[in-house]
Formats: sequence, C-alpha cells, structure tokens
Amino acid sequence: MSARDTMTVADLGEFGLIDRLRAALPATVRETSAVGVGIGDDAAIWTPTAGAPSVVTSDALVEGMHFRLDWTDWWSLGFKSLAVNLSDLAAMGATPRLATISLGLRGTERVADLEAMYQGVGELAAAHGVAIAGGDIVRSPERLLISVTAIGEVIGHAPLRRDGARVGDVICVSGTLGASGAGLAILADPERFAGLTTTGLLVAAHLRPNPRITLGKVLGEIGATSAMDLSDGLVGDLPKILRASGVGARIDAGAIPVAPALRALFPDEAWLELALRGGEDYELLFTLPRDLVEPTRVRAEAIGATVTPIGEVIPAEDGFLLTDLSGTTSPVTPGAWDGLTSRAAREGK
Amino acid sequence: MSARDTMTVADLGEFGLIDRLRAALPATVRETSAVGVGIGDDAAIWTPTAGAPSVVTSDALVEGMHFRLDWTDWWSLGFKSLAVNLSDLAAMGATPRLATISLGLRGTERVADLEAMYQGVGELAAAHGVAIAGGDIVRSPERLLISVTAIGEVIGHAPLRRDGARVGDVICVSGTLGASGAGLAILADPERFAGLTTTGLLVAAHLRPNPRITLGKVLGEIGATSAMDLSDGLVGDLPKILRASGVGARIDAGAIPVAPALRALFPDEAWLELALRGGEDYELLFTLPRDLVEPTRVRAEAIGATVTPIGEVIPAEDGFLLTDLSGTTSPVTPGAWDGLTSRAAREGK
Repeated sequence: MSARDTMTVADLGEFGLIDRLRAALPATVRETSAVGVGIGDDAAIWTPTAGAPSVVTSDALVEGMHFRLDWTDWWSLGFKSLAVNLSDLAAMGATPRLATISLGLRGTERVADLEAMYQGVGELAAAHGVAIAGGDIVRSPERLLISVTAIGEVIGHAPLRRDGARVGDVICVSGTLGASGAGLAILADPERFAGLTTTGLLVAAHLRPNPRITLGKVLGEIGATSAMDLSDGLVGDLPKILRASGVGARIDAGAIPVAPALRALFPDEAWLELALRGGEDYELLFTLPRDLVEPTRVRAEAIGATVTPIGEVIPAEDGFLLTDLSGTTSPVTPGAWDGLTSRAAREGK
Repeated sequence: MSARDTMTVADLGEFGLIDRLRAALPATVRETSAVGVGIGDDAAIWTPTAGAPSVVTSDALVEGMHFRLDWTDWWSLGFKSLAVNLSDLAAMGATPRLATISLGLRGTERVADLEAMYQGVGELAAAHGVAIAGGDIVRSPERLLISVTAIGEVIGHAPLRRDGARVGDVICVSGTLGASGAGLAILADPERFAGLTTTGLLVAAHLRPNPRITLGKVLGEIGATSAMDLSDGLVGDLPKILRASGVGARIDAGAIPVAPALRALFPDEAWLELALRGGEDYELLFTLPRDLVEPTRVRAEAIGATVTPIGEVIPAEDGFLLTDLSGTTSPVTPGAWDGLTSRAAREGK
C-alpha cells in the first residue's frame, strides 16, 4: 500500500484532515448557491427562503451502538449518517438545505477510510442538493462518533407534524417494512444465510437507507394529516403519532408491505415480527383522509415511490389494535427499543 | 438522599429522561416565539427573518478531552456546552435563535445531575433568547458526549467573516486573555494554589465562559473588517484570520489585556504565555479600520464590554510578529493545539 493508503488521522492532524475530507466531497456539496460560506469560517452562512419555515434535526451515531465497522463499509456509514437525518426532514415534508457533521475520532483511523465515508456523505448530499457546511472534529479514544445536524425548509405547504391524525384517516407507509431489521440479522449471523443471494437487498436496506425526501414533499402538498419516519419500528413509532394526535389505531398485519426476500428468508411469521418491530426502515408512516389515498398513490407512483394503506385511525379509547394474519384483532403492546436501558421501553405516557 | 436524587438514566429510560430534561429548561427556552415546535416532533420548526442570513455552527465536547467531571460541576458543563457554540455565532455578529443538543450517556449518570446540566444550558439560553429545539440521546459506554449545534441570524448588517482584514487595520480583542487557561492550570494543580482567594475568577472563566453576543452585533453594525472567537489561543487563532485575509500581523505583548489575578498568580511571564497560547478564552478577536477603534470602544463600554487594541495588520510578506515586553520584535511560531495528534500543529497552510 502507498503511504497515502496507510496514513492515519494522527499522522495528518486536524487541519490537514479537514482539507482532505472537504476535498472528498463533490464541489456542489462543498459550496452550493444556498450557502455562502462553507467549511472554514466560525459558522456557515446561508439565506433562507423568505417566509418558508425552517426545520432542524440532529441524530448521533455511536460505534458499537448504531453501527459496527466490521459490518459496514465506510462509504455506507457516511451515506447512512446523513440519510437518517434527511429522513427526519422528509417526515416534515421539507427540502433539505445543509448539514453539519461532527466527528469523534480515535486518531488511528485511516484517512482513506474517512475519505470514503465523506464520499458516501457526498453522494447522498449531491442527490438532494444538500451543502455540507462544516462541523467539528474531536478526539474520542474508544469509539467513532458521528453527530449530524440537518436543516431544511418547507416550501409551499405547512410542515408535516405528528399531531394531526384524525379518526377515520387511513394509516399508510412508504416502501416495505422489516428489510433493515432483516439485514441486521443477516449481518449478525452470516453463517446461517451463507450462499443465499437474496440477502444483498436486505443488507443494503440496513446499510444505505434511502430518505423519502420527494415523497415527503408530495405528502405535504397533498395534505397528509400527520407523518413521521420509521426509525424504531412500526409498533415503536406509531404510538408517537397516536399520542401526539390523541387517537388510537388498528393495523392490519396482512396489509403491511414486505419484500419477497424478507418473507422467504424469515418464515413462520418471523418476517412479520421484523416488519412490526425491526426498526431503522426510514420509510414514512403517515395518515391521510380516505379520499386522498388514491390520489397519493398515483402521485407517489409518478416519483417511483409506493404507498400502502395498512390500517385506520380509531378513537383513542379503543387503543392500539393489531389484526393478525388469521383475522383476530387484539391490543398491541407498544414499545420502542430504548438504547439507554437496553430493553424495550413501555411508552405509556 | 431521596430516590429522585439517586435515580440514574438507566432507571428512567430515554423517553422519561427527555421529559425531565425538557422540564429542567425555563419555559421561554422550551418554546419561544421564533420556534413553532420544540422537542418532540421529527424536527424543530421556526420561521427565519425574511432576508436575514442564517448562520449555523457545531461544537462537540468529549469527557476527558474537553472537560473532566471532577473539575466541573454539571450546571457549568451545560452552560459551557452552549456557550462555546454561541461564541461562534457572536464571531459572525449573529443573534442566536435556537440550538439542538445531542447527548451520549453511559446510563449510570444521575438524572439530577443531567437536570442541573440542563439548568445551566437554560440559564444561558434564556439570557440570549435561544430556544433549545431538541436533539438526540444515545448510549456512550465510556464517556459523556455533548454535541451542540446553534443557529442564529444576522440582522441589519453583513456577517462578520475572517477574510476581510486589511493592511493598516488595528487588531483588537474583547475582555482579557489567558484567564481560562489559568483556570485550567489551577484546576489541574489545586495544592499549588490552595488558600489563594483570587483563583475563583480564573476558574470561573474556564468553566463558564461568556459568549460576546452583544459585542459581536456591535462589531457587525460598526463595520469590523474581520472577526473570530478565541478558542485555541491568540497565537493559534490569529493565523486563521491572517491566512483567510492574505495579510500579516504584529502583536504588542505589552498591550494584551490580562486580569490582575492572572499576572499575580502566574509571574515571570507565565501569564503572558497563557495570554498568548492558553486557549478557551471565547473572547472576540477582530480587526478595525483605525478610525473606528475609538467609536467601537465607546459603544462597547456602553454595553459593559471592553475592547483593547493589541497590534496591527501588516503585509503578508512581513509574517506574524510579536513585540515582546522588552520591545524586541521577532517572528512568532504560530500553532494551535491539535487534539488529534496531541501536539501543537504548525499551521503553515
């Protein structure tokens, strides 16, 4: 390997590293028309669209908690770090504008790996017109840390929120559910799935989720009554809309869209468990007045997205119900994975 | 102690913790008129002032690297985490609007300690009309992490940048330099300074730096040609303005403002070394056309700030010069502390 291939972060130092990471980004991402000053001054500058609400979101990824370097390549890690933040903006119906990235590094990382990570960031940023506008680089002796903040604007409609679902609305999701959780299971037990060719799609769903930016804007324009992105699984996340909106829900297990590969590789309803609780799908979960479901499907299809009705909004006192594959309806125990307690937390509040 | 005093983060879980931290903030900080949705939706929403440039900055603090829990109290840690970010906004002449805070927690932290930290955040946020608009909470087994992003707006003047210093400008600083570095030295060697009452001011400068928000706005209005905030020491930071502006500088050591306590506790020019290289002062370093120095001093005085000329901008080919206390002028070796290599990095670029 050349010296360039083996050079570490500690060899290069902070100021040299910033230059190299900046150079790893496409030119359109380093400086876009929306951002006057990129990496380099005390802060990045841009001029928001007059009258448009801005939205801001932050998500941090910690090595060993949110990713493992033996399960992901660096390019995908960069892609995903930005993707999970853009997904939050998609859930608001926003157009992403810029992001900052703060890194915590051991110092032993290869510069070439971090460049690959920034190329992954740059690929997704360029696809959505997002400027990478600085951040911070600090030392973190034990674990790689990636803390991203993304800023967007909501143009031409009201921001999508979690608190507008109404009784009678149809509950929908984009794409398919459970693929990311399945991909994680495959990464964790490669021997079990050795030789199976259909695992690639599921692993890709876990490593490189696609934020549903364009669909989010369509939902805002068409008048979705609530929306959020699915990070903690359908059963973990839907209660957040229900609580914010003061309503209940009935979900039809048989209606939940899943990839054929998921159903094939995880039989005996293991696929359904992943679709309900797998997490990290980064699809959109939203509610629509019944008469908007078909127009939304048509508009989604035009942008290459799928929209599937999976249930209905019911009165709060009826709770959160699941109709299983045999047609039996019973209450769901809601719960999102709680990283702090390392157990599924009841969300009674 | 009551159960409430000893309850840990792992006892409470993520969702309960978010509620408790939110409650620890003053009401004006949880929801201000500038921010429509606070902690709770996928992203925070606010409507920027039409036509005003927005600025964004991110700074992360890592336990053991940027702070030690045996040297700081939790309230001060919260205060400083926001302060270092607001200081970057001050250096742009911006009015801060909102901030997001992402925390990495072991899980063994006492909830009461984190509440105290958020009270420190809230105190500073309330003083400057800043909304705390969400963030993220993740698990970090070895070290407490605090990653903050702050957003502001520049109203009524152009943003202050680093690249406008011109030959003949006067170089000025706010406040006094070296106090924070002295405070750190005192915390690191308490026996040496035991019984001395003047240490408190210096330790406070290190633990609870005051971002110069109002002065930054004055500098923007009056027409400072460049500005930045001092985080890496005068000798580490001034070269960043010189490089961005394509100029050189001569600094007069005898003109650098230092606190009397610093000079008394660190004799034999140790005080000067701290003033030049101590770091973390979070004062403003800026350049003014000569005829604006006196008007700036007068306006600064009116808001309780001090402005001190410490040198002049000279041609780039003359380099970076220091006139020492004996009147001898010689080149300075520039250099900022590089946390990744754990050595002072030459900044030749």
